[in-house]
Amino acid sequence: MTSTPHRPATAPDAPAPRPRIGVNYTPRRGWFHSWLDLEPAQISEDLAQIAALGLDHVRLFPLWPVLQPHRTLISPSAVRNLLTVTDLAGEHGLDVSVDLLQGHLSSFDFLPAWVSTWHRRSIFTDPDVAAAQKQLATEVASELSTRPHVTGLTLGNEIGQFARPDHPEVDPITPAQATAWTAGLLETVTAAFERGRHHHSFDDALWFTDAHPFTPASAVELGASTTVHSWVFTGAGQRLGAHHEGLALFGRYLIEVADAWRRVRGADPDRRIWLQEIGAPTPWISAAEGPDFAERSIRAALASPRVEAVTWWCSHDVARSLADYPEVEYTLGLFDEDGRLKPIGERIGQLAQELAAAPAPAASEPLPAMAVPELAPDGSDRSQLAPTSEVFTEWIAEALAGRIHRLDPAGLPA
Amino acid sequence: MTSTPHRPATAPDAPAPRPRIGVNYTPRRGWFHSWLDLEPAQISEDLAQIAALGLDHVRLFPLWPVLQPHRTLISPSAVRNLLTVTDLAGEHGLDVSVDLLQGHLSSFDFLPAWVSTWHRRSIFTDPDVAAAQKQLATEVASELSTRPHVTGLTLGNEIGQFARPDHPEVDPITPAQATAWTAGLLETVTAAFERGRHHHSFDDALWFTDAHPFTPASAVELGASTTVHSWVFTGAGQRLGAHHEGLALFGRYLIEVADAWRRVRGADPDRRIWLQEIGAPTPWISAAEGPDFAERSIRAALASPRVEAVTWWCSHDVARSLADYPEVEYTLGLFDEDGRLKPIGERIGQLAQELAAAPAPAASEPLPAMAVPELAPDGSDRSQLAPTSEVFTEWIAEALAGRIHRLDPAGLPA
Repeated sequence: MTSTPHRPATAPDAPAPRPRIGVNYTPRRGWFHSWLDLEPAQISEDLAQIAALGLDHVRLFPLWPVLQPHRTLISPSAVRNLLTVTDLAGEHGLDVSVDLLQGHLSSFDFLPAWVSTWHRRSIFTDPDVAAAQKQLATEVASELSTRPHVTGLTLGNEIGQFARPDHPEVDPITPAQATAWTAGLLETVTAAFERGRHHHSFDDALWFTDAHPFTPASAVELGASTTVHSWVFTGAGQRLGAHHEGLALFGRYLIEVADAWRRVRGADPDRRIWLQEIGAPTPWISAAEGPDFAERSIRAALASPRVEAVTWWCSHDVARSLADYPEVEYTLGLFDEDGRLKPIGERIGQLAQELAAAPAPAASEPLPAMAVPELAPDGSDRSQLAPTSEVFTEWIAEALAGRIHRLDPAGLPA
Repeated sequence: MTSTPHRPATAPDAPAPRPRIGVNYTPRRGWFHSWLDLEPAQISEDLAQIAALGLDHVRLFPLWPVLQPHRTLISPSAVRNLLTVTDLAGEHGLDVSVDLLQGHLSSFDFLPAWVSTWHRRSIFTDPDVAAAQKQLATEVASELSTRPHVTGLTLGNEIGQFARPDHPEVDPITPAQATAWTAGLLETVTAAFERGRHHHSFDDALWFTDAHPFTPASAVELGASTTVHSWVFTGAGQRLGAHHEGLALFGRYLIEVADAWRRVRGADPDRRIWLQEIGAPTPWISAAEGPDFAERSIRAALASPRVEAVTWWCSHDVARSLADYPEVEYTLGLFDEDGRLKPIGERIGQLAQELAAAPAPAASEPLPAMAVPELAPDGSDRSQLAPTSEVFTEWIAEALAGRIHRLDPAGLPA
């Protein structure tokens, strides 16, 4: 954990393409239940607001039980609706990426009846389920591949949550099974949509929970780039305290964790990172603090030449009339539930426009290295980098003093 | 268990109105997933076939997660679709009753995300869930009440299954809670749809499983009449053997069980019974035996003056392209998956037409009584009448010899 600022960095030296800034699209009317009652005019209005802010892409989230209500039945109208929303985004100049299997969204799990109760079976290892997912992936990816503004698919929003040891109905699988599932479905998606850049996603339990079958190895080795979801309520907030200045650096910390794991695994030296979710959750970040938190978080992330995109969570507040979300989920939008731009949305819009007008980032200086303990490549001691660790607090303290470090686990090959 | 044929019967003496014969409507294309992809022309074709057979009513089954995707959100298009199908049935001269909360259908459980995994809570006792169900009941019942051909609602198809002790994710409630839930939701439905005759429904575990919190008391005391679902695969088939002549009398046995419980509970002497589901499941009944089984079952049921209606399960075979149903569920239709009338459908159609043309049944002779052991009024020893009992086999043997008995539990008030 001592700081060794002069150790050579491994970040790529070449200038990176200009990073992209977008938002996870949460429909203002009816949240994701709007798939059941699609009103294209309403959706178009939401997407126009997003585009007008200067954001360049959205992530879309169909619901698995709506797309595939039966193991052997894909709903034609659900696929049609997904394409309708995709095309509306394109009309507003937004690029699109689609998460396939939801799966999990904002505390709610959407699982089809054919993997539940009497029909319960692993969504990761049952061969019939896997075949059905691949059929859905092929159909959806093929359709989306015909739209030039679709950049690719993600397998499912944080779908690894279903195998997280603390899930109330955990799907208990091994790391080998988790990896095989991820690799297999990515292969299917890629076969159907060759030009796309396809991803898998997970919450930060993948980086920090020793027993999680989805591993850092799969994060840095599978998919077009490594995805990172940054939520300060999963440990950083508890460790640093609400309103702490360091919270705006947690996203960047995760980026360094991801990059450290790339090196531990000897993965692609040009591997990029997509900060696919980051948000300003209360009470850790107050509404008044939101704009600064957002700007600092995004600038810190983009200061890493590895970061290809930042996608804010989320576009629109969840309506208060929709009950049962954790309190934090109601106020994460750039727009409020009446469609009014919030200060945080204004700030992110300004930042997006500034960055779009700026020259492409120059090649960056190598980062100083912070030595950290050796990490078992299989992730079995990955909690050493968790927000509960001294590594975390030291890294944050250094970063707050202006010194962003890369993390250098002991025992890396020279 | 000795037979006492001359004991006075308690069945009503007055001639009953002509019983009604209908079918549980299982859409031919896409089964109940068709709610997500409604094709009114296809539905209309199905309903026209049903009406052409001479059947007079259908039972309709919306899906709960589609109707009410969020605790505080009722899907306008799902309600609209339900009314569309209801109106199509009316156009074909069919009366309609609607089951509200599915809930359970043909081995699949459809539960909304807001009562599942992280949001799991009792669907029977959680006050917020109950309020949401009542809001849905009010809206759906109000809408349906405007259609003169809608006879009423059932709370949910065999919804008590979620509290059945052998359910894989049992919702463990007490009999008092089960009864309160049933009574409360019936009250709500009735308030919104006053002229309707509203019901609750359950599989035969209610009659035979001692530990089931839904009790015979609630069956015979709540709702406009007592519903009976007759499936020989739940015990009668195992007891008598496949292809046994007595299987066609199981529905009638359940009717006598229901009537015995009416007397045990001292419930309404004019209480009627709706044989709401009965079907001819393979391998217990072969396809060749189906027509005779159906005719004998229906005639035996209608020979009881208590029976106001028989509703066959089901209208259309489940398509083989839809995977994962228990084998038995694929072949229960009157029409096959290509819409062709099956011999069993032809037979039921002939019977329906014969009965419609026949004079209203005359007042019936009192049934001979079969003395059976005393039943605790709370249902705690209800398994005494189960298909595993000697009562059952003796009753069936007598019935096969032409002597249908009522069941007279010991200790009834004179």
